[in-house]
Amino acid sequence: MSSPFPLPDPMRRALALARAAEAAGEVPIGAVVTRDGIIIGEGENRNRRDHDPTAHAEIVAMRAAATHLGDFRLTGCDLWVTLEPCPMCAGAISHARIARLYYGVGDPKGGAIEQGPRLFAQPQCLHRPEVYGGLAEAEASALLRDFFAARR
Amino acid sequence: MSSPFPLPDPMRRALALARAAEAAGEVPIGAVVTRDGIIIGEGENRNRRDHDPTAHAEIVAMRAAATHLGDFRLTGCDLWVTLEPCPMCAGAISHARIARLYYGVGDPKGGAIEQGPRLFAQPQCLHRPEVYGGLAEAEASALLRDFFAARR
Repeated sequence: MSSPFPLPDPMRRALALARAAEAAGEVPIGAVVTRDGIIIGEGENRNRRDHDPTAHAEIVAMRAAATHLGDFRLTGCDLWVTLEPCPMCAGAISHARIARLYYGVGDPKGGAIEQGPRLFAQPQCLHRPEVYGGLAEAEASALLRDFFAARR
Repeated sequence: MSSPFPLPDPMRRALALARAAEAAGEVPIGAVVTRDGIIIGEGENRNRRDHDPTAHAEIVAMRAAATHLGDFRLTGCDLWVTLEPCPMCAGAISHARIARLYYGVGDPKGGAIEQGPRLFAQPQCLHRPEVYGGLAEAEASALLRDFFAARR
């Protein structure tokens, strides 16, 4: 089953990156950063390949975009990711001043945006992006379901 | 005013790294990762120098330790940091499977361990380190106070 509307190009690219991660033996999650609709950073889960506990797709994409811009803040940029971000990535999104967060499917086990700690709703939170969830529920959840089913 | 007991060597090193960050124009926070009492990764805040929104001292130190070990998990390792970790760093600590977290002083504005979202107390949290806070309250808070006072 696919989405009932055409997926935006950045989310299609994030899904392609998630498939590339899976082909490399990583958890299939992908992310891109856009500015004015142009992709300026890409990432896929690289924990195992890079020996890096922080190498989630969102972190990899935001670090690439910040290097591209020569700035530690991504003011006015948007992040597109296949899965609802975890607390680590949600914190990084806030530090980076991401303007809009788009994600494919919610993550009841590890998500930190609409469930669990709901980090952007915490009074401590200094910067909250606009949030648009559920953009690619069928595609993103199928990827993760197939990945974990194949490992059982 | 200094602590009423001798500071453990890893916390002394983290404080020295915080001073190095300050000298480089960064927020004065430092961190080290130890295994069996030996330092295997060091970090200081590098956001501005590296154009990296994720380059907090803890993240830099954990990435260095993971590279050193050739593993994306730091099982059995300890993290020493001058300030209570934020949500991003607390999430990374959990992903990395850090065994014990030692921090210098609590952070009422941005801390995520004993205040705010209290991430390790969230039911979603898959790995909680042992936590020892307030190890260098006088030294770490003086560093931050002087830094922000000089910028006002």
